[in-house]
Amino acid sequence: MAELSPSIEHLIHCLRGLPGVGPKSAQRMALDLLERTPERAARLAEALQTALNKVQRCTQCQNLCESAVCELCADPCRDASQLCVVESPLDVMAIEQSGAFKGGYFVLKGRLSPLDGLGPDEIGLPRLAQRLDQGNVGELILATSSTVEGEATAEFIVQMAKPHGIAVSRLARGIPLGGELGLVDRHTLSHALNGRKAF
Amino acid sequence: MAELSPSIEHLIHCLRGLPGVGPKSAQRMALDLLERTPERAARLAEALQTALNKVQRCTQCQNLCESAVCELCADPCRDASQLCVVESPLDVMAIEQSGAFKGGYFVLKGRLSPLDGLGPDEIGLPRLAQRLDQGNVGELILATSSTVEGEATAEFIVQMAKPHGIAVSRLARGIPLGGELGLVDRHTLSHALNGRKAF
Repeated sequence: MAELSPSIEHLIHCLRGLPGVGPKSAQRMALDLLERTPERAARLAEALQTALNKVQRCTQCQNLCESAVCELCADPCRDASQLCVVESPLDVMAIEQSGAFKGGYFVLKGRLSPLDGLGPDEIGLPRLAQRLDQGNVGELILATSSTVEGEATAEFIVQMAKPHGIAVSRLARGIPLGGELGLVDRHTLSHALNGRKAF
Repeated sequence: MAELSPSIEHLIHCLRGLPGVGPKSAQRMALDLLERTPERAARLAEALQTALNKVQRCTQCQNLCESAVCELCADPCRDASQLCVVESPLDVMAIEQSGAFKGGYFVLKGRLSPLDGLGPDEIGLPRLAQRLDQGNVGELILATSSTVEGEATAEFIVQMAKPHGIAVSRLARGIPLGGELGLVDRHTLSHALNGRKAF
């Protein structure tokens, strides 16, 4: 029985590797690219190649960037003694967009997840240990995710920071702005109650 | 305010061009490719490039293939006097998987949609006219979609076939196998009633 040509099948297979893309969407993407927008397919191939060639990890904070030290680490206006630890470059972007933080970042390569083979070495914790050893960090702000793995990662970092006597804090948990109580899950609500603040 | 590096931003922009991919999924895809699976990103770039270089339209039926004439058109066992007209290579694959058709195909480049600038020339109808002129086609089976544009395309082809005295048919519409009456929309139901068959 005849099928699509081998190179289309291979393209579909590669597109299926993308997060959130199933067999049907991969087919649709491949045929859309080849049939309707080949110039877009060429641009995408080039963008992938360029990004692969140019993007590297910042030697200071492990953020993705295009030079040895990222813009944020190189910025003399930022307070390098405050270090916010996040799980991904997207988290850096989100915090930067809030405009509420002017310190430095340390970007983990995900979070501890032994079942997925992600231990301290895999997520880049040794580099964080070096940063702490250098003695320039006065405060660590942990912004790992509120999942079991995120919490375990935070706990691990707390233990790393202890011998250095560094102040460690965690992002506040509570009701999101504009959030209705009825729509907030009970764990968040219990965090919000326990963390209540006096007027 | 610092953002992601320019080549990551560009990659995200290119991924957003894929059907069904919004800004958030494009971000997730780009970072997943660069952070976790760079070898996959390289494979995808190469697959895109290979497909762009190799894939062409069959000169007979306009299907996507890797040679001047596709496997289906080159197959001597298929009845070339029966021609099934579809809107996309995916439709060919779907009909082939049913195993119910052993004739030839003609693959349109979509369907007539004047608002999108898709007229008869854009969807490749002149090539179909040539096929009909050659006089080898005895029967046309229209398998364009059941949308307003699909119907208009079918109607256009009926008019093209008329002077040649070619038998033209349309895929039957009705209740899908295993379909419950309560879940079938009323237009399909009315087609099923009008097209009822005697035992």
